[in-house]
Amino acid sequence: MTTYRAPLDDIRFVLRDVVGADQLPNLPGLEEATPDVIDAVLAEAARMSETVLFPLNQSGDAEGCVYDNGVVRTPAGFPEAYAKYAAGGWTSVTAEPRYGGQGLPGLVNFVIDEIMISGNMAFTAVPGLSHGAYNAILQHADDDLKDLYLPKLSDGTWTGTMCLTEPQCGSDLGLIRAKAAPADDGTYRLSGTKIFITAGEHDMAENIVHLVLARLPDAPAGTRGISLFLVPKFLPAEENGAVRPGPRNGVLCAGIEHKMGLHASPTCTMAFNDATAWLVGAPHKGMRAMFTMMNVARLAVGMQGLGVAETAYQNALAYARERPQGRPLTGTGANGSAVPIIEHADVRRMLMTMKAQVEGGRALAYWTALHVDVAMRHPDPAQRQAADDLVALMTPVVKAHLTDLGQEVADLAIQVHGGYGYIRDTGIEQLVRDVRIARIYEGTNGIQALDLVGRKLPEGTGRLLRQVFHPIDAFLSQHAEDPAAASLVTPLAKAFGRLQRVTVGMAQAALADPTEGAAAAHDYLKLLGHVTIGYLWARMGLIAKAKAGGSDAEARFHDTKLKTAEFYLQRILPHASAHAAAIAGGATAVMAVEPEAF
Amino acid sequence: MTTYRAPLDDIRFVLRDVVGADQLPNLPGLEEATPDVIDAVLAEAARMSETVLFPLNQSGDAEGCVYDNGVVRTPAGFPEAYAKYAAGGWTSVTAEPRYGGQGLPGLVNFVIDEIMISGNMAFTAVPGLSHGAYNAILQHADDDLKDLYLPKLSDGTWTGTMCLTEPQCGSDLGLIRAKAAPADDGTYRLSGTKIFITAGEHDMAENIVHLVLARLPDAPAGTRGISLFLVPKFLPAEENGAVRPGPRNGVLCAGIEHKMGLHASPTCTMAFNDATAWLVGAPHKGMRAMFTMMNVARLAVGMQGLGVAETAYQNALAYARERPQGRPLTGTGANGSAVPIIEHADVRRMLMTMKAQVEGGRALAYWTALHVDVAMRHPDPAQRQAADDLVALMTPVVKAHLTDLGQEVADLAIQVHGGYGYIRDTGIEQLVRDVRIARIYEGTNGIQALDLVGRKLPEGTGRLLRQVFHPIDAFLSQHAEDPAAASLVTPLAKAFGRLQRVTVGMAQAALADPTEGAAAAHDYLKLLGHVTIGYLWARMGLIAKAKAGGSDAEARFHDTKLKTAEFYLQRILPHASAHAAAIAGGATAVMAVEPEAF
Repeated sequence: MTTYRAPLDDIRFVLRDVVGADQLPNLPGLEEATPDVIDAVLAEAARMSETVLFPLNQSGDAEGCVYDNGVVRTPAGFPEAYAKYAAGGWTSVTAEPRYGGQGLPGLVNFVIDEIMISGNMAFTAVPGLSHGAYNAILQHADDDLKDLYLPKLSDGTWTGTMCLTEPQCGSDLGLIRAKAAPADDGTYRLSGTKIFITAGEHDMAENIVHLVLARLPDAPAGTRGISLFLVPKFLPAEENGAVRPGPRNGVLCAGIEHKMGLHASPTCTMAFNDATAWLVGAPHKGMRAMFTMMNVARLAVGMQGLGVAETAYQNALAYARERPQGRPLTGTGANGSAVPIIEHADVRRMLMTMKAQVEGGRALAYWTALHVDVAMRHPDPAQRQAADDLVALMTPVVKAHLTDLGQEVADLAIQVHGGYGYIRDTGIEQLVRDVRIARIYEGTNGIQALDLVGRKLPEGTGRLLRQVFHPIDAFLSQHAEDPAAASLVTPLAKAFGRLQRVTVGMAQAALADPTEGAAAAHDYLKLLGHVTIGYLWARMGLIAKAKAGGSDAEARFHDTKLKTAEFYLQRILPHASAHAAAIAGGATAVMAVEPEAF
Repeated sequence: MTTYRAPLDDIRFVLRDVVGADQLPNLPGLEEATPDVIDAVLAEAARMSETVLFPLNQSGDAEGCVYDNGVVRTPAGFPEAYAKYAAGGWTSVTAEPRYGGQGLPGLVNFVIDEIMISGNMAFTAVPGLSHGAYNAILQHADDDLKDLYLPKLSDGTWTGTMCLTEPQCGSDLGLIRAKAAPADDGTYRLSGTKIFITAGEHDMAENIVHLVLARLPDAPAGTRGISLFLVPKFLPAEENGAVRPGPRNGVLCAGIEHKMGLHASPTCTMAFNDATAWLVGAPHKGMRAMFTMMNVARLAVGMQGLGVAETAYQNALAYARERPQGRPLTGTGANGSAVPIIEHADVRRMLMTMKAQVEGGRALAYWTALHVDVAMRHPDPAQRQAADDLVALMTPVVKAHLTDLGQEVADLAIQVHGGYGYIRDTGIEQLVRDVRIARIYEGTNGIQALDLVGRKLPEGTGRLLRQVFHPIDAFLSQHAEDPAAASLVTPLAKAFGRLQRVTVGMAQAALADPTEGAAAAHDYLKLLGHVTIGYLWARMGLIAKAKAGGSDAEARFHDTKLKTAEFYLQRILPHASAHAAAIAGGATAVMAVEPEAF
């Protein structure tokens, strides 16, 4: 892999011209998040990613993590890179100022996520999990725990984990067996085995704060009997008013997994043995606290799809521009010399697909992320609710659809590279191996689809969906009569009409039989993802058209943006119809073959 | 990875009831290829694959090949497995009896390919390449070379390679630089570097026969100046009338690649240094001879997609039946115990997709392969031509569409396994890594699409296409009035109508501007693949329906087959419409962004 440059021009276009990030300073608490400040922060993030993280990406994959008797060594350079990352303030971007954070918008943090992930997805697993742990403690723990742990997570001297999965329970947390019993001093003693724990053990920070789901002795069965606990690797000790890691707690890394990819991120089996634990939130209410971590984490996983896709696209583009192979179909013919493969229509198709997916995915991600800030801070409760509805609706779409497109784009990057794409040294196949996990963890993409169709759509009889349908409807009405917009608006109107019809049909069918919704869920999520990105592309196309002119570079940027919009709407959006047709086919064909008859 | 059992019931159904393999003994030279003989051969192939090859698949991936100073060591057990493979006669299935072969139908060999690949794709790379070398020598070399080399390739004591690619030339063989100069004795001295040579060096056979593309001193530029040479690793020597490996020739393995997958198959850089070479065929006519190897190899690569897909499907099914997780949406609700995940609609969707793709792909592959035998042996020249037309048309579709679906099915197998699918020990992610190369080598899938649209469609003004369109048309007419067949026939008729319209439109556009064809090629190949498999599924559904009854097992098999047909036609075939729409969009959107404007 040869190249990664943060696409700051495109990021700026989406932030300012598409999602309206310039309005962020109007939100209480974000007064300082001016466009200039955001630009400066992102320029620094780009430097961090390009010069510190990206150079370690391939070596980290080749070297991997090493487990030795409870200790995990990350690849060469990773501890030093983490120290720079924490010193640069990248662990505290959205943390509260009272805990040492910078209080920047969540949107900015998601953009930073994208940039850092593009440089080195495996590296970002550690700070990513800390971020989730920070939020869970902030929202559910008591003040003593907050005062003790949040400054350490904010400045990055300690990192966090989410310990959910056990060998017998992945998607189904009701099967959790880990147990916690109250001790005399108000703490608990927690025992059990957790698997697939990202950054459960490593050598990048002085302490690790595990957030662990377990059952109290009086816990009801299933998910209603799960509580959340905080279990530090080292018990905090105070010395001269400063907190430092004290005695070792009863938690040990029992091994690490050998995985398809993400080799530089340690995936640990954690053995808890009468570990001292603190309850976070109310007894038996662990699932709610877990979802606090999970929802932020799901959007962040969507950014993993986007971030890896960007790197894959940039490298495929660079290779296609420099690899001479074959002659053009028109012109000089078989006697001319070979031309760069970007000249060939089928390679151009792949590059345009990658470009349209990446930039469209970026618009969807940032649009959703902006509403995280609005939902949290807008003074008008109705606005907060509306934004929260949009975030709740689109979180599974961002997670699943963007990780799917991350996989697709990384896969296309291999294809553009031909045989060289299959060779490890080239570094491209690593992207496919790394991003593959993003479609599985934090709830498989199938679970995301069920969340969308089974939980988010029925809520308030479709209230959440209005946050997407209304703006699309308004956009279509506004441009219905404009012939100059037809190349963008007509395909969108067609696909949106399909989406509306299918939504009604599916909702009615699912009311009568929930299996109808479950059998349609995957295709519905893809359909909604395609149409929403189609809407954002149509808007981007018209915005770009309206901005024609300016410097040569600006004019070219906007011209290319418009052409990419037309490509998405004409060549990718048609896939929406296939998903609509599959949904309309109903559950019968899906469920007809009994398990024993396969 | 826990399981592979050759799907002999499904294989037999496709062979007998769908493609009519029972008619093979009517072809001259295939009189002995009766159903009983074929059954016996396939049962033995199943045993070989299940008990010898499959047990080495995961260990071969973990261990990989080792290069040391020109020598390549394959993983533990591979040389012994190859000895059993050759002793079992699996290298000589289709070889001519006069060269020690068994003279069985090509169709049978493709089925054996599928079964062996399912067991261990990496292992099959060595005999697969030998098969291509055998055919090239058989059809293009003089009798001395045939008599010397074909018995050795047939009995497997020697293996073969295809040496095409060089660092600067992959898809574009016109850029070849390897050179061969005539020597005084009628042989040549060949020099140059070839890369990505499968089985270029290994420890599984006593000699290796390289078929090498190179230029003679007076060669015209480009592909019209390429000749084919035979270069043995050891020069053949005669001793007491027996041929054995003699002095070492000037060819050395300079290194092996570290690849995404297929670790047990050595991918070699071969350095030819004044190697003694024999010309195969006429000077400067190497491309034609190369295509002899290539066309067989392309179908065989399609079988790689199918074979890996079958193993992936079987393992996903086994896991889904035994992994308890979650509760049913209807019935006992949240208080019941967890059910096997196969009960969940979204998992069922994935399994049905895998099953429908695998069994549909199998029908397409065998249908095409049967016509290889008809094209070669039918006494009626018109029948031979018709069969040859079908094979020529469908070869790129089998290669590209079946490797695409191999990738899709292997990827779905990871998804069904959840987090465990990402762990190397589970063995599933290996299938994704292994099969990935099949979409690249023997002509990337993009090259296949260009071959289909640029070469095969225009030939005889669409003559080849009639071999697929006519049977579909006849089938639709035959069943148009049958309401009981509507669930199968109606979706097919719709998709076929789209295919017909798009074909006319694309052909006209491509006549005016070849870029229109090239920009549409990928989607056209996918469209033709979907519709052809849709046709075969509709036929299979009606055949299964007509065979209702019989033993319980037979009744269940046919009932499941019919339901799977309905699933394909209702839930997968709709993707044809997306490809049709993309083609109808034309080349403008694909080519609008200039290379420098990306």
